[in-house]
Amino acid sequence: MIVPRLIERKRNGERLVEAEWHQLIQAYARGEVPDYQMSALLMAIYFSGLDRGETNALTDSMIESGARLDLSHLDGPRIDKHSTGGVGDKTSLILAPLIASLGVAVPMMSGRGLGHTGGTLDKLESIPGFRTNLSLAEAARQIEEIGCALIGQTEEIAPADRKLYALRDATATVEVIPLIAASIMSKKLAEGLTGLVLDVKEGSGAFIPDPNREGNLAKAMIQLGADRGCPVVALLTAMDRPLGFACGNALEVRECIDALKGGGPPDLMEVTYALGAEMLMLGEVAGSAADAWRRMRDAIRNGTALEKFGEIIRAQGGDDRILEDPSILPSAPRTADFLAGRDGFVSEVSPRTIGYGVIALRGGRRTMEDTIDPAVGFVITAKPGDRVTRGQTLATIHARDEAGIREGKRVLSEAITLDDTPGTCLDLISLRISQDGSAPWRRPAIGEQS
Amino acid sequence: MIVPRLIERKRNGERLVEAEWHQLIQAYARGEVPDYQMSALLMAIYFSGLDRGETNALTDSMIESGARLDLSHLDGPRIDKHSTGGVGDKTSLILAPLIASLGVAVPMMSGRGLGHTGGTLDKLESIPGFRTNLSLAEAARQIEEIGCALIGQTEEIAPADRKLYALRDATATVEVIPLIAASIMSKKLAEGLTGLVLDVKEGSGAFIPDPNREGNLAKAMIQLGADRGCPVVALLTAMDRPLGFACGNALEVRECIDALKGGGPPDLMEVTYALGAEMLMLGEVAGSAADAWRRMRDAIRNGTALEKFGEIIRAQGGDDRILEDPSILPSAPRTADFLAGRDGFVSEVSPRTIGYGVIALRGGRRTMEDTIDPAVGFVITAKPGDRVTRGQTLATIHARDEAGIREGKRVLSEAITLDDTPGTCLDLISLRISQDGSAPWRRPAIGEQS
Repeated sequence: MIVPRLIERKRNGERLVEAEWHQLIQAYARGEVPDYQMSALLMAIYFSGLDRGETNALTDSMIESGARLDLSHLDGPRIDKHSTGGVGDKTSLILAPLIASLGVAVPMMSGRGLGHTGGTLDKLESIPGFRTNLSLAEAARQIEEIGCALIGQTEEIAPADRKLYALRDATATVEVIPLIAASIMSKKLAEGLTGLVLDVKEGSGAFIPDPNREGNLAKAMIQLGADRGCPVVALLTAMDRPLGFACGNALEVRECIDALKGGGPPDLMEVTYALGAEMLMLGEVAGSAADAWRRMRDAIRNGTALEKFGEIIRAQGGDDRILEDPSILPSAPRTADFLAGRDGFVSEVSPRTIGYGVIALRGGRRTMEDTIDPAVGFVITAKPGDRVTRGQTLATIHARDEAGIREGKRVLSEAITLDDTPGTCLDLISLRISQDGSAPWRRPAIGEQS
Repeated sequence: MIVPRLIERKRNGERLVEAEWHQLIQAYARGEVPDYQMSALLMAIYFSGLDRGETNALTDSMIESGARLDLSHLDGPRIDKHSTGGVGDKTSLILAPLIASLGVAVPMMSGRGLGHTGGTLDKLESIPGFRTNLSLAEAARQIEEIGCALIGQTEEIAPADRKLYALRDATATVEVIPLIAASIMSKKLAEGLTGLVLDVKEGSGAFIPDPNREGNLAKAMIQLGADRGCPVVALLTAMDRPLGFACGNALEVRECIDALKGGGPPDLMEVTYALGAEMLMLGEVAGSAADAWRRMRDAIRNGTALEKFGEIIRAQGGDDRILEDPSILPSAPRTADFLAGRDGFVSEVSPRTIGYGVIALRGGRRTMEDTIDPAVGFVITAKPGDRVTRGQTLATIHARDEAGIREGKRVLSEAITLDDTPGTCLDLISLRISQDGSAPWRRPAIGEQS
């Protein structure tokens, strides 16, 4: 293998064969191919692309660079959900116990906050005692016992992907669809899934705000899954405003507890149920979306979903008393309401501004070394389209001190726009994309009472 | 300076401003920007290009990364010649003393063999005792005293270029015209030239065989020179066959001595005079090409050019007795003639095959660590278009041993094609390119006797 020759061929728009990808990625993972050759290849891929076979080979070779979560001895379905990242996007914390309580194993591997978006691991770690750094063996045992584990990408899983991801971040080669698809899918496929649901965000708060490119990403991942017998279904959901009310780690955990008790914000529940229905249908536990929605509502109504969350928290060393007494969660010493300065309509709540605002309050990282203040953030009850009157509370700021409150007010003034007209916003869930193609998403016809 | 952001902008086809190039290249030279970011940027440049201002800024910042050969205290013209590289291309060794003997200072910085091509430094080092690693101070003193120095790219000149060049070689980003132009010109401009003549090779033995791309390279370098008050003139010359007869280090030095005594092969002399005339005209020593040709012929006829070569050799520690007794040069223990196997025409002599053949005889490097056998090589008197008869000598092989002779025969059988018809070959000198544009090259009308 002469690496400059491989780079040259990819640069010239030629394809590399499967064996070449495997050799290259294994050698890179072992440190035998230097970063400076790999980054030149990544930039050549940015311009020349990868075809389906190459994306498959890259994904496989990244999986093979590490260990897998071996769940093959479990009979039942094993379904995970992955989001391309958003603000207030806490569906993972609700879906994991909810879907596990309905008989589908959920081996959920999550990440940390990235850019303006929050991360499931950071949210979970606001639960006192909660450990996310399970070994693969621990995770497998826990999934076998209680049907779910909430973990990070361990050192063992796809180390080549971890190394490549850090390199892409430093070389302006992140936004390349086959590379994003291979990176996500290498981690997900190493979990030994039987199906995967993707939450692809669109709108100003998404990583790639262009919905066409997001659709292409979904299609690339659906294809990667299909080629490996792991069906993938994607929903395109709105990230032109935060999801739910709470933005900030402990505040979001609290909102998830509310949700599992039946009191979640409507937009959060809609996205959660829509994603959960796909998980239950992929897991062949529900025969239809309507069936799935009914089962999920029942699991929340009768407390089994909340109970499962308690099991998971206990299994991972966390304090499950938070479910009865959420005040045990870290809480900010200072809070202040943010009021409407005029009559009118909420025309925009910018998720990007809010996301960076949480970081400004120290609720997220500016560098990889930063520690997070889990208590701070915003609870924004105002939604685009809402009619409001002067003096009405639009949001509450949770901060460490008065300076944080001032900063929070500055952030909210910038993020929330009031206008004479309600403006427009994206459909909460616009498209459903599967191997059969794309179709507008429709809420299943079930009565509110069911 | 956030390097990933610079890479991203170049990747997106935007331009970087002058200050950004300077900051980036200085930081890279100091080791503060890692190779993996620079190689991603180089690949982005491969696809997105550099405009004239960016190429200028890159060139300047590479010059500024090191020292310059300060010749500004010399009154007269200072002209160098640069070749894009060929086989049997020994014009530098003739031009340096010839042009210096006519009153133009020649600060000539040369390279080593690269790929299939020979290098002037390697040829010079076949002269017993000859030192090419002069310091800049030594070179400046020698140019002041005798009008010429033949040196390599010292550690002092454009270190950022040296570092970038090694990186490009390892990352398939060599063939990028603005990068080639900036690399060559940063070294040449650091010599403090008042003019530069380029010998741009075209044909199967050239590095970039596509003449259009070669023409673009010439234009890029002419522009870079023009923007800095250093006029550049380029000749497009044939490299679809070796230049002259000798290919191999000491054999080529011997041919240069013959040439300086008036006995050089016609094609070699034609290219030498054509390039030399441009040097003399840029140096304003000759008023026309015809005037220049007459002066050069005189300098050879009356021995002043040969005498100047002796001065240079002595100044750089070499044994100038080689001029009177070339047998002092390294000579191969074994020689053998290579005969025509049939009647017909020489339709091809492949320079690439001959160049790699010299390396196979150990007359060039396979790795940077190889030592060179200066004695070996070929003297190929057959030229494309020549009518030959069976049994006629086409070439002589100079080798270390019998295995070398066998290898040499294999190489020549592959390189030399005999056919029923003479075939076609490129015009020896096709185009003259200057800031005023391109025009077909014409031999000046001077009598053979003048």
